[in-house]
Amino acid sequence: MRKIRIGLFGFGKTGKLVANEFLKDDRFELGWVVKRTRKFAERYASRRLGYETKTGPIHAVGKLGPRFFAKHPVDVLIDFSSAAGYRSYRDAPDAGVRIVSAISKYEPEDLAALKELSAKTAVLYSPNITLGINFLLVASQVLQKIAPHADVEIVEEHFRDKQEVSGTALKIAQVLGLEKTRHVNSIRVGGIVGRHEVVFGLPNQTIRLVHESISRAAFGQGAIFAALWLADKPPGLYSMEQIVADMVARNVPIF
Amino acid sequence: MRKIRIGLFGFGKTGKLVANEFLKDDRFELGWVVKRTRKFAERYASRRLGYETKTGPIHAVGKLGPRFFAKHPVDVLIDFSSAAGYRSYRDAPDAGVRIVSAISKYEPEDLAALKELSAKTAVLYSPNITLGINFLLVASQVLQKIAPHADVEIVEEHFRDKQEVSGTALKIAQVLGLEKTRHVNSIRVGGIVGRHEVVFGLPNQTIRLVHESISRAAFGQGAIFAALWLADKPPGLYSMEQIVADMVARNVPIF
Amino acid sequence: MRKIRIGLFGFGKTGKLVANEFLKDDRFELGWVVKRTRKFAERYASRRLGYETKTGPIHAVGKLGPRFFAKHPVDVLIDFSSAAGYRSYRDAPDAGVRIVSAISKYEPEDLAALKELSAKTAVLYSPNITLGINFLLVASQVLQKIAPHADVEIVEEHFRDKQEVSGTALKIAQVLGLEKTRHVNSIRVGGIVGRHEVVFGLPNQTIRLVHESISRAAFGQGAIFAALWLADKPPGLYSMEQIVADMVARNVPIF
Amino acid sequence: MRKIRIGLFGFGKTGKLVANEFLKDDRFELGWVVKRTRKFAERYASRRLGYETKTGPIHAVGKLGPRFFAKHPVDVLIDFSSAAGYRSYRDAPDAGVRIVSAISKYEPEDLAALKELSAKTAVLYSPNITLGINFLLVASQVLQKIAPHADVEIVEEHFRDKQEVSGTALKIAQVLGLEKTRHVNSIRVGGIVGRHEVVFGLPNQTIRLVHESISRAAFGQGAIFAALWLADKPPGLYSMEQIVADMVARNVPIF
Repeated sequence: MRKIRIGLFGFGKTGKLVANEFLKDDRFELGWVVKRTRKFAERYASRRLGYETKTGPIHAVGKLGPRFFAKHPVDVLIDFSSAAGYRSYRDAPDAGVRIVSAISKYEPEDLAALKELSAKTAVLYSPNITLGINFLLVASQVLQKIAPHADVEIVEEHFRDKQEVSGTALKIAQVLGLEKTRHVNSIRVGGIVGRHEVVFGLPNQTIRLVHESISRAAFGQGAIFAALWLADKPPGLYSMEQIVADMVARNVPIF
Repeated sequence: MRKIRIGLFGFGKTGKLVANEFLKDDRFELGWVVKRTRKFAERYASRRLGYETKTGPIHAVGKLGPRFFAKHPVDVLIDFSSAAGYRSYRDAPDAGVRIVSAISKYEPEDLAALKELSAKTAVLYSPNITLGINFLLVASQVLQKIAPHADVEIVEEHFRDKQEVSGTALKIAQVLGLEKTRHVNSIRVGGIVGRHEVVFGLPNQTIRLVHESISRAAFGQGAIFAALWLADKPPGLYSMEQIVADMVARNVPIF
Repeated sequence: MRKIRIGLFGFGKTGKLVANEFLKDDRFELGWVVKRTRKFAERYASRRLGYETKTGPIHAVGKLGPRFFAKHPVDVLIDFSSAAGYRSYRDAPDAGVRIVSAISKYEPEDLAALKELSAKTAVLYSPNITLGINFLLVASQVLQKIAPHADVEIVEEHFRDKQEVSGTALKIAQVLGLEKTRHVNSIRVGGIVGRHEVVFGLPNQTIRLVHESISRAAFGQGAIFAALWLADKPPGLYSMEQIVADMVARNVPIF
Repeated sequence: MRKIRIGLFGFGKTGKLVANEFLKDDRFELGWVVKRTRKFAERYASRRLGYETKTGPIHAVGKLGPRFFAKHPVDVLIDFSSAAGYRSYRDAPDAGVRIVSAISKYEPEDLAALKELSAKTAVLYSPNITLGINFLLVASQVLQKIAPHADVEIVEEHFRDKQEVSGTALKIAQVLGLEKTRHVNSIRVGGIVGRHEVVFGLPNQTIRLVHESISRAAFGQGAIFAALWLADKPPGLYSMEQIVADMVARNVPIF
């Protein structure tokens, strides 16, 4: 079976972990990595990550050139760069490239521009691409519907230097119709990678749905999942939320 | 709107809490309570529970008499007595009584006998009738299907004098295909009412589904839910597991 | 060994649970209960709590009479009534009665008046008299001293109708020098009896000290502990915080 | 102020993280690293860890030579290698080197040999050198003494491939006098770095002391703490358990 060729935008802290997950998985071939800055000692992503092999040549985003995607064909482009990253791959759909964007926050006009690309190719966009967080999101909505009288609160814990409220927590609050300033409780201590808890309180019982991040490599696994899923899809706009919701619907047990 | 008339089998610790929930809810009328022992000072369940009113006359199970259910008509019979309780209400279906059994453990022959009653009336049987536990059961199965590579462990915590492993934990283990002796971890300390946690471990993230019991009155709320649901159903065998699974399936969100 | 005679002020929700703990413990004799309202069908606390015996005659606070404490001698008076309760037992010290006050919140002038009584008798005052909460308080202070660079946050969870922030959480915040509006996170859902968590975050590890209340009967056990401790103490002002701190200091292990 | 010179035995997964913590902390100078295998491309620990500077020359354990410690003087030797590591630094005390051993498990004869070195120099040995775990150990013992009627259970969670029961959990069980096969509950799922919980159950309240590891770099911070503490100590045998116990005793608050 032919390997799925991956192009990666973004080679920061998370981008490196994502690249590493693809390098370790032999269903994929890391075609190239696009990085913001031009200066780097190593020319290959694999070398930067401690491998002996030379895989994933690194390109500077400012020097891609007009026919980059045709000259360096990949099946799926994964974007962990920034909200402006899409501006450099507007031509990718013409070269048959499918797109996974895991940018956590877009301005409306940027999101609209990304969505335009879905007329020509399959585009999957999710601000949090992990399976676990999307399960939390879907399961919370289902439970709220089933137990409408339950009180619901969200507690999110992260490392002390994370300034803003967790985008994932805000998203959960939004889909549950909870006012974010009242119902999202943010704990900032030490080095906690990320913990989200949705508490459902009923008079005689409490239900807690909890997601704990161990490593941001989870985003790499989410990207792998998304790339596999997207590989044979027609043009259109997709999301991990919807994919996970569909999986939930298809897997409800019968007793 | 006419109140739903309830007959209750069992007036022990849990039975009393269940009776109390029905007494507080004006969609119901507590028609009678059947209790094991013949001796009791109070003739009314309501008085035993500290109310001024005289509601829910108490009958001894050994003195029900041949036409008890015809003479004391109710819409739904709720059984929190014991695995042998059904032997005293085999005639109930002939009087048009629907049945909710919340007995936690039946021997196969008793369960078979209970199921026979479902040929004539609507019978709902669930070993744990709370909404929360059944959500935990269904959500765990769904998540296991979605994340088949996750390792799964069950931790259940109860008061020190609970001798046996939690039936609910065993049920969760069974539906998840987990060997119970290896994957159910039982903590017995102090006065914990009941806590069940299903831990899903992935390489970079952990998901925990947790149910905490505050009071056994939760069983009363579960019985209320079951009685309302059953009130207009045709003969047949039903379960809270299936009801909750159906509710999950119907409430999966669309993004 | 002679039983310790207890007089109880307060017979509301918590007062009843406290009375019950003393009734079940044969090291004590419940001498009397003082209740706010004059009207009550039952004349004995024991009967109100479902016992057959007649123990703990109930007195209305407005009808105690001038020589109440001399005529109805007890060893220890336990106060679970209200911040004004002490006004009705100012004479108690003259009758040799020791005092345990578990009032959760005093105005400064009331607290000062209570403290005056400690010139004549042993007075123990604690806003939360449970062993567990006081251990949490002491252990949190110790850990903060040991790990001064840790970030600390407090999360407290209670039933939806609890309007104010937990006094215990505020006390923890105060002793840890944490600004209460920023570092105390209050969750109000369903029927949670009470949960306090102090989270200590370090760059590579997190430590959580958690106290979960199962029943307010814990206050009864705290009162029993306090009464036993106080029974042979000279006049003076004592607190559970200090008693538990002393116990911690005396029980540090040697390796 | 003169920097404390560190020599590190062990450069595996944990050893590298420990080296990194010392490299980042300018109170220390990483004098050298001793590694098991002879083959390595990089000659400096700092380079292996991605720094530009050349610090911490790497030596193979088999090639230390007779006067290694005199020729390469350090103040404190940190051992994260293996139970046999001490055999290569028996001469270190003669060169005035203090020793911190963080080996998780020694055979009795190896431990005895290590202890012999403490006649000549200050030796600190702890199987788990983190501040948090030792606080958990001490606080658990104190609470058990204060609440002797509490039931106690230990739950430890680690990544799926950790075969044996956590040594830390066994140590906690031992100091609490709990039979390890009954009271230590081991959860093995996914990629959990390490979580230890000691549950104390009383009839009306539950207390949980929880330690969560985020990264094994915590061992580096523990080693830094130990090295600073040891730097001016006379010959003798020390342990983190005892240091933390002393800190607890000195920091009990007065109310």
